[in-house]
This record gives sequence, C-alpha cells and structure tokens, in this order.
Amino acid sequence: MGRDARLVDRTVEGFLDVLASDAPTPGGGAVAAIEGATGAALIAMVGRLTVGREAFADVEERMQALIETALTAQQEMETFADRDAHAFDSVMEAFKMAKETDEQKAARSAAIQAGYLAAASVPQEVARRCVELMELAEDATAMGNPQAASDGMSAAASLYAGALCAIANVEINAAALKDEATRAAMLDETATLRSRADHLLRESQTAFQLRLSS
Amino acid sequence: MGRDARLVDRTVEGFLDVLASDAPTPGGGAVAAIEGATGAALIAMVGRLTVGREAFADVEERMQALIETALTAQQEMETFADRDAHAFDSVMEAFKMAKETDEQKAARSAAIQAGYLAAASVPQEVARRCVELMELAEDATAMGNPQAASDGMSAAASLYAGALCAIANVEINAAALKDEATRAAMLDETATLRSRADHLLRESQTAFQLRLSS
Repeated sequence: MGRDARLVDRTVEGFLDVLASDAPTPGGGAVAAIEGATGAALIAMVGRLTVGREAFADVEERMQALIETALTAQQEMETFADRDAHAFDSVMEAFKMAKETDEQKAARSAAIQAGYLAAASVPQEVARRCVELMELAEDATAMGNPQAASDGMSAAASLYAGALCAIANVEINAAALKDEATRAAMLDETATLRSRADHLLRESQTAFQLRLSS
Repeated sequence: MGRDARLVDRTVEGFLDVLASDAPTPGGGAVAAIEGATGAALIAMVGRLTVGREAFADVEERMQALIETALTAQQEMETFADRDAHAFDSVMEAFKMAKETDEQKAARSAAIQAGYLAAASVPQEVARRCVELMELAEDATAMGNPQAASDGMSAAASLYAGALCAIANVEINAAALKDEATRAAMLDETATLRSRADHLLRESQTAFQLRLSS
C-alpha cells in the first residue's frame, strides 16, 4: 500500500480483494475502522430519515445532534483505516533493520517495540470510539423513525463488530510488547470495552424488539 | 440507485456517503451483505497467509479448501448487496401503484406483500450464509497461521455483524407480511440463526484466546 493512497478511495470490491490477498495489511485492523465508519453512517441515515418530520418533532434536536456526531465520526474512522495499516507496516519495516552490531540490535528492538505499541494503540482508539458510538446507535434505534429501526440495529451490530475486530488487533499486538505494565493496562482496557460493547449490543437488541412490537 | 450500477463498484467512501444519506436504500440490508463479503475476504486472507508454508503443512488441504469456499462466498455476497437494495426498492414502487378501483387496490396490495416477502427473503439468505461462513472463520482462527489469528477473529466478528444486520432486516420486513404462517416460519429461522451465530462467535473468541496464549 502506498502511503498516499487512501483505503477508502478504493472501490468496495477493490478493498475486499486486497483484504483477501496475502498482504499483511490491510487486515482486521483496517476492517475495524471501516466497520466503525459503517456504523456511524447508519446512525446518520436513521437521523436523516427522522429529522424535519412532524411525527418525530419531539426527538428533532437529539437526532440533529446524532447526525452531526455520526458524520464527524464516520470521517475520522475512515482515516483510522489507513493509520492502522501504516502502524502495522512500521512493525514489518522494523524487522528488516540491520542487526549486526549491539547498537543496531538495540535500535532494531526499540523500533519493533515502538511499532507494536503503535499497532496496538490505533485499534485501541478505534475500539473506544466504536463503543462510544454504540450509545448513539441505541438512541437511533429507540428514538428514530421506526421504519429505520433495522438500520439503527444494523449500526449497533456494525459498531460491535468494529469493537471486536479492534480488540483482537490490540490483543495480538500487545502480546508482543515487552513492557508488562503497558501490556497489562491495554488488556485491562480491552476487557472493559468488550464487556461494555456486549452490554450495549443487548440494549440495542432490546430497543429494536420494542420498536418491532409497537 | 440505478439498477445497473453495482454497489461494490462505488468507492468505500462513496458507499458510506450514500449509506449515510436519507435514501432508504442502501441500508442495513446491503451492509449485511458487505459485512458477509468482508468476513469471507478475511477468511481467504488467513488461508493465503497459511498455505505453502512448511510449518503449516498439516492444515494445507483444509486451508486450500477454505480459500476456495471463501472467495466464492465473497463474490456471491457482493451481489447480495444489490439484490437487497433492489428488493426494498420494489416495496417502495408497489406503494406508488394506483389504488382507485378494487382491482387496482388488490393488485397494489399483492405487489406490496410480494415486495416485503422478497425484502425479507434476501437478508434471510444472507444471514444463513454468514452463519455458515462463521464455521470457516473459526477454523481459520484455530488452525491458520497464528500471526493472522486476529484476522480470523475479525472474520468471525464481521460475519456475526452480517448475520445480525440481516436478521434485523428479515424481522422488520416480515412484520409487514399478512401471511402469518410465512411470517412465523421466517421468525423461527431467524431465532435459530441468531442463537447459532452467538454460539459460533463465542467459539471463535475461545479459539483466538487459545492462539494468543500458545
């Protein structure tokens, strides 16, 4: 992947084809960010199918706020797809560094560790944002146009997948970190995020079933 | 959406932008298919990072089979994204039919019901396929190159989201069906699929944690 080409400028099919290839990036980390962007887009869709209609005047303000937050998040998530791929590429480049002298070995080892830290930190941020957005997906499902409730539920499911993909990428890269305190702190946070994501998914599922039966 | 333009020919950003718009399609149903295609692509990625390497010779045959099945599924899922959008568009068109005479009313009502049936049947098929593919994602996670275990886990998470998005779309469209037997049969199947998807997600999560600790 060239550093100037954005992943989201590829066609959907082109993105999926490079994903399916044996290139190490893009992989699950980039997918996490795209799932996050997809969830955000679906929240905006529900908001836009709700605002400006008399029947939903009571939630107009909340929906306007959802749309604005979701569209900003969508754009940020799109840039995280590239940041994730670049972070992992930096690990691969560090492994190729010279390792003849002790100095070279130390520099290489430090670069590898810095690479893994970045490769764990980017999906950590993606996981945080996906979980935050899941609260908006629940509001979109519960309070938005009921005809778009399935889109709100789909937002929650996409964001949940984004969180799980991101967490798996944090965990596999954190496993390579030699600094135990950093690693433990990261894994503590992923455990909290996963449990919060599980809870919010169930909340959206309940909200969706309520819309179906009303 | 023109009937000739494929959704997957849009750029990722372009797809997300039309998703976020107030157009009723594409929505969660198309997202379900794209999540399914994403999961399939990630299974193929894990397979390709595993085959042809001496260290993984014992799973060579299984991984070759995974790649082939996953690539076929990826292409099929890509076509389902359009089929879903078209099915829902046909509901919208049926609502616009004339309803002056009794004959027109009956024809319109039949067209609406046929439209909802198609709009529920397409995501039903997507949900079935996502759940089937989740078994392959588990094998990719458990048996593939351990360095790609996070990609296998991400495949499982993407397919899980695909199943949940598809099921939400089955449920909201099935709710409009007047034929109670058809509706009940559809909802029975979605309940089974959801429970199977929950189970398979947990299995992949266990497989991933085993790879991390080995």
